[in-house]
Amino acid sequence: SHALVAAMSGIRCILSSSNDDNMVGTMAINGNLWLGTVLNALLLSFAGYGSGSGEVGTSNGHMKLLDLLDEAVPGVGTYEDFNTIDWVREKSKDRDRHREITSKSKLSTWALLQSVSDAFSGWLLMLLVGLSSGALAGLIDITAHWMTDLKEGVCLSGFWFNHEHCCWTSNETTFQERDRCPEWKSWAELMVGTPEGASAYIINYLLYVCWALLFSLLAVFLVRAFAPYACGSGIPEIKTILSGFIIRGYLGKWTLLIKTITLVLAVSSGLSLGKEGPMVHVSCCCANILCHLFTKYRKNEAKRREVLSAAAAVGVSVAFGAPIGGVLFSLEEVSYYFPLKTLWRSFFAALVGAFTLRSINPFGNSRLVLFYVEFHAPWHLLELVPFVMLGIFGGLWGALFIRTNIAWCRRRKTTRLGRFPVVEVLLVTLATAVLAFPNEYTRMSGSELISELFNDCSLLDSSKLCDYAERDPAINGSESGNELPDRPAGSGLYTALWQLVLALIFKVVITIFTFGIKVPSGLFIPSMAVGAIAGRLLGVGMEQLAYYHPEWSMLKGWCTPGADCITPGLYAMVGATACLGGVTRMTVSLVVIMFELTGGLEYIVPLMAATMTSKWVADALGREGIYEAHIRLNGYPFLEAKEEYAHQTLAMDVMRPRRSDPALAVLTQDDMTVGQVEELVAATEYSGYPVVVSHDSLRLVGFVLRRDLLIFIENARKHQEGVVSASLVLFGDHPPPQPANGPPPVKLRSILDLCPFTVTDHTPMEIVVDIFRKMGLRQSLVTHNGRLLGIITKKDILKHMAQMANRDPDSILFN
Amino acid sequence: SHALVAAMSGIRCILSSSNDDNMVGTMAINGNLWLGTVLNALLLSFAGYGSGSGEVGTSNGHMKLLDLLDEAVPGVGTYEDFNTIDWVREKSKDRDRHREITSKSKLSTWALLQSVSDAFSGWLLMLLVGLSSGALAGLIDITAHWMTDLKEGVCLSGFWFNHEHCCWTSNETTFQERDRCPEWKSWAELMVGTPEGASAYIINYLLYVCWALLFSLLAVFLVRAFAPYACGSGIPEIKTILSGFIIRGYLGKWTLLIKTITLVLAVSSGLSLGKEGPMVHVSCCCANILCHLFTKYRKNEAKRREVLSAAAAVGVSVAFGAPIGGVLFSLEEVSYYFPLKTLWRSFFAALVGAFTLRSINPFGNSRLVLFYVEFHAPWHLLELVPFVMLGIFGGLWGALFIRTNIAWCRRRKTTRLGRFPVVEVLLVTLATAVLAFPNEYTRMSGSELISELFNDCSLLDSSKLCDYAERDPAINGSESGNELPDRPAGSGLYTALWQLVLALIFKVVITIFTFGIKVPSGLFIPSMAVGAIAGRLLGVGMEQLAYYHPEWSMLKGWCTPGADCITPGLYAMVGATACLGGVTRMTVSLVVIMFELTGGLEYIVPLMAATMTSKWVADALGREGIYEAHIRLNGYPFLEAKEEYAHQTLAMDVMRPRRSDPALAVLTQDDMTVGQVEELVAATEYSGYPVVVSHDSLRLVGFVLRRDLLIFIENARKHQEGVVSASLVLFGDHPPPQPANGPPPVKLRSILDLCPFTVTDHTPMEIVVDIFRKMGLRQSLVTHNGRLLGIITKKDILKHMAQMANRDPDSILFN
Repeated sequence: SHALVAAMSGIRCILSSSNDDNMVGTMAINGNLWLGTVLNALLLSFAGYGSGSGEVGTSNGHMKLLDLLDEAVPGVGTYEDFNTIDWVREKSKDRDRHREITSKSKLSTWALLQSVSDAFSGWLLMLLVGLSSGALAGLIDITAHWMTDLKEGVCLSGFWFNHEHCCWTSNETTFQERDRCPEWKSWAELMVGTPEGASAYIINYLLYVCWALLFSLLAVFLVRAFAPYACGSGIPEIKTILSGFIIRGYLGKWTLLIKTITLVLAVSSGLSLGKEGPMVHVSCCCANILCHLFTKYRKNEAKRREVLSAAAAVGVSVAFGAPIGGVLFSLEEVSYYFPLKTLWRSFFAALVGAFTLRSINPFGNSRLVLFYVEFHAPWHLLELVPFVMLGIFGGLWGALFIRTNIAWCRRRKTTRLGRFPVVEVLLVTLATAVLAFPNEYTRMSGSELISELFNDCSLLDSSKLCDYAERDPAINGSESGNELPDRPAGSGLYTALWQLVLALIFKVVITIFTFGIKVPSGLFIPSMAVGAIAGRLLGVGMEQLAYYHPEWSMLKGWCTPGADCITPGLYAMVGATACLGGVTRMTVSLVVIMFELTGGLEYIVPLMAATMTSKWVADALGREGIYEAHIRLNGYPFLEAKEEYAHQTLAMDVMRPRRSDPALAVLTQDDMTVGQVEELVAATEYSGYPVVVSHDSLRLVGFVLRRDLLIFIENARKHQEGVVSASLVLFGDHPPPQPANGPPPVKLRSILDLCPFTVTDHTPMEIVVDIFRKMGLRQSLVTHNGRLLGIITKKDILKHMAQMANRDPDSILFN
Repeated sequence: SHALVAAMSGIRCILSSSNDDNMVGTMAINGNLWLGTVLNALLLSFAGYGSGSGEVGTSNGHMKLLDLLDEAVPGVGTYEDFNTIDWVREKSKDRDRHREITSKSKLSTWALLQSVSDAFSGWLLMLLVGLSSGALAGLIDITAHWMTDLKEGVCLSGFWFNHEHCCWTSNETTFQERDRCPEWKSWAELMVGTPEGASAYIINYLLYVCWALLFSLLAVFLVRAFAPYACGSGIPEIKTILSGFIIRGYLGKWTLLIKTITLVLAVSSGLSLGKEGPMVHVSCCCANILCHLFTKYRKNEAKRREVLSAAAAVGVSVAFGAPIGGVLFSLEEVSYYFPLKTLWRSFFAALVGAFTLRSINPFGNSRLVLFYVEFHAPWHLLELVPFVMLGIFGGLWGALFIRTNIAWCRRRKTTRLGRFPVVEVLLVTLATAVLAFPNEYTRMSGSELISELFNDCSLLDSSKLCDYAERDPAINGSESGNELPDRPAGSGLYTALWQLVLALIFKVVITIFTFGIKVPSGLFIPSMAVGAIAGRLLGVGMEQLAYYHPEWSMLKGWCTPGADCITPGLYAMVGATACLGGVTRMTVSLVVIMFELTGGLEYIVPLMAATMTSKWVADALGREGIYEAHIRLNGYPFLEAKEEYAHQTLAMDVMRPRRSDPALAVLTQDDMTVGQVEELVAATEYSGYPVVVSHDSLRLVGFVLRRDLLIFIENARKHQEGVVSASLVLFGDHPPPQPANGPPPVKLRSILDLCPFTVTDHTPMEIVVDIFRKMGLRQSLVTHNGRLLGIITKKDILKHMAQMANRDPDSILFN
């Protein structure tokens, strides 16, 4: 704090003394008078800036001082809401800060300690993000499980036990029927005393629907009242934020609190939605809030985005229990700038999160993963045919879902429908609950359904899906060994298949209307459920085919009679992968997540075949994944890194001003007055202005941002004596001599970006787009033979791309 | 070919008709005369270029024609050996090609088929790379295994069987002693008839040394005679090549052939080296050769590097049987430009490679992985202390190894030592063989040693490392259940420990001298061996401590007496990870490779703790990993992406010309003659020249490469009538009117890069370095207020960085 006070007083001294124009202020900037140099050196070394006086007076010395000035005028270097950040500037700021700490660390032990703690703060932050996300995920899992069961009944030995937990604590549970115990009472049992009969069924049905409505009403009310940003999946917005967009409050503490509560409510209400996408949002909120503990991350938008990238990995890691898959998800799907350092830290945070969750043990099985599966039978090469068919199904479902969902969401945005979000949520909940209750596969929660479908039948399994008849010794050989061979389907299985077909239709339709309503909603689980049902149906079909027709030449080489040659659970898994891939267009991360669930490299090939087919099919029907489609629907300025820019335009075709427009608004280096500048800024709406040597030569000097310019001039008018509208505005390094009696000039070189990016007018747009993506630019200036010609902003590029794709260019809303 | 002929004749027409300066040539370039437009359109549509005449005549139309011209003059757009490629140009070229195919595909079914096959050629290539690398890896494994055993003896039932295989086919093998069978005869047994006794030992010893010398002599001879690039690990060079450097023949067919053969010889000779690094080189050679099958990859240096990145992943995948780890290795360690598309393809290729290898089954155990390990006991949190100690050991070993190895390699480069590579190899082999034979842990191959050290002792294990004494019931409780509790060490184990200590010292010293000799040599296995020995020693130590002192408070909460609480194999694994991490500075990929070997997420935390500690310790002692150190030693132009540029210089401090230098060599747009240009090119050595409007204004028009300039002028002198030294060289778009009687001018706009990258002189070097890295530049021009000031090349940056780090800037050899 000592150093800070010194620095502040130093700045004040510079600002106040620049009235008479040839004292410390000029010296500090030009650094060519001995007095200035000495004062400068004193100031810098006292404030702890610079490693010694040797550097002061050179361009480095003055740059540091300018940084100091930057900090001094509050607001300079920050961004407005719904604006794009400048990655280059943020990264430069961080490097300056880092250099400063490094050079200070040689001066004292305390500074050295600070430097070490600064270096480790990233790791500490990652640890905290992992711990908090893991803990929150555990809390959400446990509460959602309990509340889901509350819709059906209550535990007498303690209302806070969920169904499974209730029966664990009971002594009368048998191994065969784990979920039956006298302590757990359904609502009908509690009210009319009997679990069977029509009246009991109706009571249970009614209460199920009422609870669902109550939960969803509460959820939508909380979202509307306290945190409108808490609705939806959050991944499209997080992708946009990570690409360098500012949405204030989107990752704030209110959003975190409300999203956590309403996520539990929404999941418990039985709507066709999952908690995986919102978990990514919750993790990112945690990370964003924790960033405030560390100056390094609080003050720098680029550094904070590194942390958010890692947090996205943690979100998936705790949602699925798949840390490596989570990191790859972040790398492949959500992140924009992902240096290797972030890769390593994300991995650490994802592991911490996964282990925190495991130590909470919400699933009660000591497993890290959400769906633990173990298959015993290997797969045959010919089975790739049904797997590819599942891939095609997944691709078709993905494309269909994206189109219909986007059409519905657009209708919601543009018609009267959007004005009644609460009613919409209640209607969707009512429809879901009423239709879901009669069918046991839709009544259970999405993740339970998927678990059941992934499951490989064992001898002791009592579920309907494993209700096979005794084998007919006439058809196949005798029973062999202790493995479970293919058997004919029993009546229970036939019922289950019919129920699954109905569940499939129900899920397909209801999910389209659910994703986008004003409660937290992810679509990993619903998508996977659709695919898992389709896969299981196909798997059982194949199994029966192989049982009844072992003589078919196609099946001959593959299935020996009496062996377990088809695993319907594997088909369900492949189907789930394909459908999720079709919707999100994930590739490697999806396969790796699934690999982590099964733990066997064996099954990677089927998963990969399905994912690849699904992606190709879906891409053929529409290039965008669901998240990109939602980004576009909302008009966010997002420059997709995966899509190649395929058109053949040049920078001059995209830049502003167009031929018919008035000339580019520029500032000149040292012959404009404060009044003229203010007039120009007021007359235009641009977020920045190029500074040129003169209007005739149009030789570029630098670029100044509107916000910085306004803040600085206002500051000068307030704190610098004698600044009037007639004062000159000086951007130059060596300004021409001023008349002695004129008003003091305002020196703005400190806020001038001396190294704006420029491209020539002949640069192909594909290169321009590449530069924007890779460097994270907000704008680039366009020159022709060394003369300034125009400017291209990110918004211009996006508008141009929309135009080339025959879309409405005005759908890009933000800059 | 029809289209090609038409295109060629069109070009010839343009070139020949540009004699009279206002005919088709000008028209084709300016595209503003109707005749030119029509001719142009005809030419383009006939040659299949452009989707229709609508585009012709616009700037797009003429750009396409320029591409056509580019192709026409042979050599334009290619690179010289030991030069850096321009990524931006290569990627533009590929996009043009892609666009052309897409637009053609609408014209005919055949073109559509071509377009589809073009789109899938990448996948096909990946499949081929995976298959060939997997097959080669299997071949290398089998042959190396057989030749390693040949040093000790021969199989009587067939000399082509290795020891293990020989005894499989035997009927007299017992389960206890798998490697003893009458069919396998050691050399002594074959010669003097007895396997025991001093004379037999001496015969075995002598023959062991002789075989080793023979193998290594053969290896070094083959390398020297046929493919000097086949020596070493290859990873430093591949990193450099992937960053955009050209080394002709480094990935050619001779290198592939000789590297495959000599790798087997080198591994079999018993030298302290591994085959994992060279496997990456072999895979890359395969990929590079296979690239020649597809025009898309043959002609484009950037596209080819995408394939090579994937091939590096395949190399690690087949070396360890860890496909995901391989992909992350490529991403983290070797690749430079790694778009998401490449990630997905690498993953596919890595899987194909791994499954090809598994179907060859060289280890004979149907396992995918090189070291299959299964641990049963969980680890305790307090065990992190020894794991971190292993991490520190690994970091120290890494730093020590890099320093000493680089010092030795530098001595080899600079002193007389380097002139006798064959003698050096023979000496190292002699030392290795003589010292290794007496100790059974050094006599066995590196990977066998590691397998043995990783192994968890089971009850039936007969190895010395598992020779534990019976438990003393007085000290601990009674035997409980079927698990194997900690037991006191037996005499065999004590012997083994001593041998391991000696082996550790031997390996540490000999590896330093081995890595860098003129045979193929990887250092994954030797590094891992060092770490595994250290880890196993520590693990056994901890185990004995826990056995004899269960009452120590530190151990109390952790080890219940009579339980199996310490797994020495896990310590070996952690040690191996730490040492490999210290040498290569890999992080995520290393942990993932090890995770794939064990298959349990459980053990990720110990591995991660060790890797992190090891990286921190090693980084504190020297920033570079072994590969970066070797790149620097060889003076390759490699811009490290991981290292932050920490200095505070500006572009003007780095650019050429310096203040004392003569002015920048520039060409003017349209008032230089061919003679003047040739004179300037002859007088300077730059690889490119900026083109300006005039010497006075210094306003930049574009950039032309020396090679292109020379080729084009030579071509014009040969094929264009009337071109003499007095002919004007025209770069401009609208050249001034020429005197009617003068010699015809040479038009060079087609080879002029109209969109060179520029930065201002005030741009901080960190931003310049960032642009170079991310965009893959060769050079950037520097301007001040719109006037051209200088140029920065990649070499300048590297020299500057060397200077700032107090190293010799002349160590950067190539451009």
